[in-house]
Amino acid sequence: MYDIKELQRIVNETIVNETIGREPFSLYDPINYTLQSGGKRIRPVLVLMACNLFSDEIKHAIRPAIGLEIFHNFTLLHDDIMDHADIRRGNLTVHKKWNENTAILSGDAMFIKAYEYFLDCESPNFRDILKVFNITALEVCEGQQYDMEFEERENVAEKEYLRMIELKTSVLLAGALKIGALLGETSESNANLLYEFGKNIGLAFQLQDDYLDVYGNVDVFGKQIGGDIVANKKTFMLIKALELAKGDIKDELMDLLKQQSFDRDTKVTDVTNIFNRLGIQDIVKQKIKNYNNNALNFLSQVSVDENRKSELNKLTENLIKRES
Amino acid sequence: MYDIKELQRIVNETIVNETIGREPFSLYDPINYTLQSGGKRIRPVLVLMACNLFSDEIKHAIRPAIGLEIFHNFTLLHDDIMDHADIRRGNLTVHKKWNENTAILSGDAMFIKAYEYFLDCESPNFRDILKVFNITALEVCEGQQYDMEFEERENVAEKEYLRMIELKTSVLLAGALKIGALLGETSESNANLLYEFGKNIGLAFQLQDDYLDVYGNVDVFGKQIGGDIVANKKTFMLIKALELAKGDIKDELMDLLKQQSFDRDTKVTDVTNIFNRLGIQDIVKQKIKNYNNNALNFLSQVSVDENRKSELNKLTENLIKRES
Repeated sequence: MYDIKELQRIVNETIVNETIGREPFSLYDPINYTLQSGGKRIRPVLVLMACNLFSDEIKHAIRPAIGLEIFHNFTLLHDDIMDHADIRRGNLTVHKKWNENTAILSGDAMFIKAYEYFLDCESPNFRDILKVFNITALEVCEGQQYDMEFEERENVAEKEYLRMIELKTSVLLAGALKIGALLGETSESNANLLYEFGKNIGLAFQLQDDYLDVYGNVDVFGKQIGGDIVANKKTFMLIKALELAKGDIKDELMDLLKQQSFDRDTKVTDVTNIFNRLGIQDIVKQKIKNYNNNALNFLSQVSVDENRKSELNKLTENLIKRES
Repeated sequence: MYDIKELQRIVNETIVNETIGREPFSLYDPINYTLQSGGKRIRPVLVLMACNLFSDEIKHAIRPAIGLEIFHNFTLLHDDIMDHADIRRGNLTVHKKWNENTAILSGDAMFIKAYEYFLDCESPNFRDILKVFNITALEVCEGQQYDMEFEERENVAEKEYLRMIELKTSVLLAGALKIGALLGETSESNANLLYEFGKNIGLAFQLQDDYLDVYGNVDVFGKQIGGDIVANKKTFMLIKALELAKGDIKDELMDLLKQQSFDRDTKVTDVTNIFNRLGIQDIVKQKIKNYNNNALNFLSQVSVDENRKSELNKLTENLIKRES
């Protein structure tokens, strides 16, 4: 069995040692720039972990694992154009460093490259693996579309928000685990249980992100606290607050959201105070805990020797404790 | 054997009867809008023709054929953003009718849909078919990148231009034929001969486009004559003229290219006159003929009953005679 750190090392080494492309370099340079810029490599590690759960041999899972990481980075590249984001992982985004056309086209090429890595994979489950990848990729697009739509909308229901983050974030973690399971040649039932495990982990992960943006420790979190509040981002916290606030608190919250000019820190403090008065912190913590418990419940049903599950259990534990 | 018209009908009927997608409709509407907007459907027809060359059964080739058409339309969608094109096939382009973000994301979803159609295909050559599709898709991106690069450059050599149009246009026609051949379960050698046939047809096709932009009949051509000349587009004609022009003619041509403000018709007439004096018309016609002959030569080597090749021969003939 490999531990998470070893798998991360394998993924990073493979990516660092591979320069993608040929002429025209202007098409491929942004791809390598993006892939070499780091990141936690969670998705390829999940592919390898799920494969390793059922198979001591994981070599054949490396190419599809990297393919999934390339796909994930492609979505970030195109999302950054759409969100007008200038910085990603401390570096200029591709459309800022080069230009928008390059970002669109290199993104497209990157996506094709992701498929290429999958097509290299040797597995009796080849076709099923590709289908999981394909439907997952489409769902991620759907999630991004909802995310953009919600920005334009006055009201977003809790249910809609949860569906959006499920599509935008969770299904890719779930898909990674299912693909890994298929590469490990386990039963369909095990593969589906891991998919559900991943979906719940992903929801917990995203809600933890929302939570840390408000209640995180700036020294550990790595970015300014309150970014979502300043941008009026309809996160789980804000949606819940809008749902629960009545009377004066509701008026106060609406006024804060409508402010055209404001002092950043004051707005963050004021909105956080409202969250506190409404007990949002506990609500989101409970929600995260529920998703984590769901995840662990699905994992417990996977029929494989319990001690092989230690790394996935550890991952889930770290997730609920993480502060950055 | 099916004739071209029947195959076009099959393709169009399939596309018209299929509405792609589900919620969020804002993601899928632009895809259906693009697919329903017509076009010659050359690529899916080529898939079916190549399959039909070796197999009376072509039903299993329809899904991948449509997949290739979806891919082609995806490239147009993203190209139109990059080229700031407002109109496509008489309709507003997606980024004009909706917005740029929608065009990027719907394009991405469209590309994933193209794969979905391929993944539905039942063939013992499934993996090889996907590989041809994938490498072709990447080459089309490379072609688009060169095309954009050449716009920024002072000089483009004939060889570079031909390589660019090979990547941007020809390989997709070639790939369509090879995929069709693989679906028809013929030999690798036959599949490769059809690929080369398609590559040469594609080069002839693109050069004919360049030619018609200058020497076409406006009533038949369907768009204004001289668009490439007005835009100083480095087509085969202009590249050849810059190569052959000496002394006064060279100075005259350079002056025309440098003009900042000019009367459209005068510029088109003047540049066309220079092309005439340099004999560019004959050169490009000869070049087209050579590619056509190469194509026919490859087709003649395909080992299948000669009378099955009649539709592909007819297609090639029509190509050299086409005026729009």
